[in-house]
Amino acid sequence: MKVSELGEFGLIELLADIVDRNKNPKDLSWQRLLIGIGDDAAVWKTDDAVQIATTDSLVQDTHFDLNVVTWEELGWKAIAVNLSDIAAMGGTPKYALISLALPGDLEVGNVSSLYGGMAQIAKRFGVAIAGGNIASADKTVINVTILGSSESVSMLTRSAALTGDQIAVTGYPGLSAAGLRMLKQNLKFNDETAQLLREAHLTPMPKIDAGQILLHRGVKAAIDISDGLIADLTHICRASKVSARINQKALPVHPALRNNFKGDYLQLILGGGEDYELLFTASNQIMNRLKKTMPCTVTVIGEITEGNPGQVVLVSPEGKIIPWQETGWEHFKSRT
Amino acid sequence: MKVSELGEFGLIELLADIVDRNKNPKDLSWQRLLIGIGDDAAVWKTDDAVQIATTDSLVQDTHFDLNVVTWEELGWKAIAVNLSDIAAMGGTPKYALISLALPGDLEVGNVSSLYGGMAQIAKRFGVAIAGGNIASADKTVINVTILGSSESVSMLTRSAALTGDQIAVTGYPGLSAAGLRMLKQNLKFNDETAQLLREAHLTPMPKIDAGQILLHRGVKAAIDISDGLIADLTHICRASKVSARINQKALPVHPALRNNFKGDYLQLILGGGEDYELLFTASNQIMNRLKKTMPCTVTVIGEITEGNPGQVVLVSPEGKIIPWQETGWEHFKSRT
Repeated sequence: MKVSELGEFGLIELLADIVDRNKNPKDLSWQRLLIGIGDDAAVWKTDDAVQIATTDSLVQDTHFDLNVVTWEELGWKAIAVNLSDIAAMGGTPKYALISLALPGDLEVGNVSSLYGGMAQIAKRFGVAIAGGNIASADKTVINVTILGSSESVSMLTRSAALTGDQIAVTGYPGLSAAGLRMLKQNLKFNDETAQLLREAHLTPMPKIDAGQILLHRGVKAAIDISDGLIADLTHICRASKVSARINQKALPVHPALRNNFKGDYLQLILGGGEDYELLFTASNQIMNRLKKTMPCTVTVIGEITEGNPGQVVLVSPEGKIIPWQETGWEHFKSRT
Repeated sequence: MKVSELGEFGLIELLADIVDRNKNPKDLSWQRLLIGIGDDAAVWKTDDAVQIATTDSLVQDTHFDLNVVTWEELGWKAIAVNLSDIAAMGGTPKYALISLALPGDLEVGNVSSLYGGMAQIAKRFGVAIAGGNIASADKTVINVTILGSSESVSMLTRSAALTGDQIAVTGYPGLSAAGLRMLKQNLKFNDETAQLLREAHLTPMPKIDAGQILLHRGVKAAIDISDGLIADLTHICRASKVSARINQKALPVHPALRNNFKGDYLQLILGGGEDYELLFTASNQIMNRLKKTMPCTVTVIGEITEGNPGQVVLVSPEGKIIPWQETGWEHFKSRT
């Protein structure tokens, strides 16, 4: 069987199983591992705190197109997508390691710009770029590892959603996918909209503060939206063995989407991905208190229900259940 | 200027400078960083210990050729080269994060074998594979990050060599490069030699125990041999602002090299690279005590001298200074 046939998530399950079958559970490292393969980041106990670690790659022509992104934006985004994984755990990012594979005929100025963008976002979030590695390759691959910490042993995880929880999302999902479409199809908008969509796609702002507030206010289940709202909610539902119902009329629709993508803004919001907003669940009580303290827009969009683990349904404004064609971002499957 | 013209080490200096100019030195993460860009691994203080982190990529057709390496060997090696960086600091490896970029038409069985090799070496060294990431790409890129720790705040570094120190090396450098040549040129040897050379190149054993003993016995300066003995000694000399003299007749020459690579075993030993042995310097006193306690062969091969920082000279058996053509492994320059 080919990797593309098994798909990203099947492959992750398979590899997690190989790792599990081959480990020595008596090793101290395994005993201290709190969260392993399958969540936004890995978490383990140290003597005095909790360490959080995540790694992610951006591959040329898979994740970015050098015709539309500047090297500085690319540097920002490579760090941002990893910080977002730390945000999704409720942690504080501390250190970055950068591993670059670069073509030899690349201009040095471009690599400087890449690092300029990285240094900018690292400074913004108090992260020290501590080291890395450079190798040669035909195409550019940027791998970033972020190490973070938390004082709390309990973290935000994908597996902690409970039946009856409300489902909420920060910000306005769909803007990033709209930005990608604008850049790829060379769509024309007014300057303000064009900038908003470009920034949403190329220089997302990871929700570090929001993640920490969620954790401190008693939220248990969260994920960052990278694959797409429905796809990432499905990850939560599978890991938590619950179902979810999304109310279409409750979805936050940014005016830039409503006005410029009339026919398919719903598709962008639910299936777009790369939003790096937080999607989380909590009891009504926690949710009501949260809304007043969050540093960003928070919208309740549905609820966790009993039912087939992993099933997500959409309820139309007329109250009809709409079957949802899963189109979230999965590697090895073509992007719509 | 192109990346290939500037070269790997020029590029690292340039990027370290960008990071340094853009940092906020008041950030706690920067204040706690003990060793940043430019050594084998990054090191920072935590409340109760020292954290060590390193990352390294293996890129298809740059670092490995799928015609000669099995997927299981590749998995072993991808982890081994990172563990070697932890060994070169004197640390203990704890956790691994694996980031894979894979072609969609790759057989799933190959990825399973890759992870099988990784799980095997991870278990051997008590390392927990805690997480990772999978993306699609035209060619396979394997990025590994290893997190480790140490109870000692002072580590083995490249910058601590002192004039008068003896220079020593573990094991038998050159076997890995001989293995590469055997595989590439399809050279034929007896089974024992063929296996020795294959293992030296494809399943190297990182010198974790040796690194820890060096640290505990008072050694200050070390590096692992990845670029080549002379090239890596040059890294030490540049970072320590000293020179070095190597005595050719003191070099450890493995019989498999002496017997099968008569014309150029010196080239393999001094310029080969990917040995993942440790190269270190220490006073006579420390060195004499060390030799009795090390779990592997240790050979004194020269001494640290005053002189042009970074200069390494070779002394022939007749006592003549031999100019050395630097042919160590550098990315972006073609390999000899």
